[in-house]
Amino acid sequence: MTTAFNGSQFAYGPRVDLQNLQDLYAPQSVEPFTPPPPGIDNLGITSTDTFFVPGKGEFTVNFKGYVRVARSKPTTDQWVDSEVYTNLIEMCMRGLSSEVGPIIVTLNPEVLSTGMLRTPHKDLQCEQPDKACRMAVAAKFEIPKLGLTLINKEPIELTIDNVKAIPPAGAPGEGRIYEILPLFDRDNMEGPPAAYLTSLHFAMGTYITEAQLDNIAAE
Amino acid sequence: MTTAFNGSQFAYGPRVDLQNLQDLYAPQSVEPFTPPPPGIDNLGITSTDTFFVPGKGEFTVNFKGYVRVARSKPTTDQWVDSEVYTNLIEMCMRGLSSEVGPIIVTLNPEVLSTGMLRTPHKDLQCEQPDKACRMAVAAKFEIPKLGLTLINKEPIELTIDNVKAIPPAGAPGEGRIYEILPLFDRDNMEGPPAAYLTSLHFAMGTYITEAQLDNIAAE
Repeated sequence: MTTAFNGSQFAYGPRVDLQNLQDLYAPQSVEPFTPPPPGIDNLGITSTDTFFVPGKGEFTVNFKGYVRVARSKPTTDQWVDSEVYTNLIEMCMRGLSSEVGPIIVTLNPEVLSTGMLRTPHKDLQCEQPDKACRMAVAAKFEIPKLGLTLINKEPIELTIDNVKAIPPAGAPGEGRIYEILPLFDRDNMEGPPAAYLTSLHFAMGTYITEAQLDNIAAE
Repeated sequence: MTTAFNGSQFAYGPRVDLQNLQDLYAPQSVEPFTPPPPGIDNLGITSTDTFFVPGKGEFTVNFKGYVRVARSKPTTDQWVDSEVYTNLIEMCMRGLSSEVGPIIVTLNPEVLSTGMLRTPHKDLQCEQPDKACRMAVAAKFEIPKLGLTLINKEPIELTIDNVKAIPPAGAPGEGRIYEILPLFDRDNMEGPPAAYLTSLHFAMGTYITEAQLDNIAAE
């Protein structure tokens, strides 16, 4: 698999060097409380997103798909203080809204989605602390029936707490949206917000196979 | 007053056209529940920010200074449904930390800080609803004693609820930080986070005079 990213686009945080990173597909065994070797995690994902479109109201859509997450080499060999940086290098989720039809969520290639896993600083004295995972995401929501593609400029902040293994496969997470997150019409990016994301709950899935990933991408 | 912004830098949201916008200084009379003519608000501001620096711990600093906020023409003449877009075009706040000495907060000129005031969509049927104000801020924290300047890449999201007049002078607000917001060393922007913002509470002040603003800027 390749990725369209280059080093020149705006980034919400640190870039992960993709050179020599191995693609990890199912099956994989993940050691809990152990800093893992770097790699690219190919994981399933589900998400339930609520949108508000002015004049059209609020509607909620269930999405299912995959993500490809590049992970850096952990900064130390010990779980307690090691940090891992992540880049979301590919995403494809599909949902069906009874109001607006199919919605396809992918990454905005103009902004790099970045994240990290770290021990909350209050827990650095614990023997085997849970880690916290956060990711700032630049997404693209295509709604073919409306001829509309929506893009966020402020990141969608996704968090997973109580992380006991890296990657946190199977863990539920939250989109940290305070009331609204503005979304812009790709054909009028300098205009006012065309819609808003008002809530997001997600669950990171487990490793998928390359064939499963290709099937979702090709749907 | 002029501003260093041009149309080419990354923006967290819509740009406000600064041409023909009048600078508004104290004294001003603000009509509650009334969409105001556009302008540039010169307002006092105070903020209490908590930082975490790995290896050095957490410390809290009180800041005081001013902001200059460009406001667009309201989208309608009625308070109930009018929206106003804002750009933070200048900021200067100073604080003194017993741990690291003086800290000066200004804007990161490479990213445009943008915001909006709108009626929460659940309240659009109310006769005279409160509005909600939000701003995505790209800041720069200079710490001369450490020779360090910290910059956020994900926006610092500032919100003020229960807004009964525009501008919401005198209103308290919150930085919507979930646990941590990464800050980067200006001299190592591609490196890992150098520090984190862990909480922020602020209060928008009232209009100040041009002389007061110049005094703060020149300190």
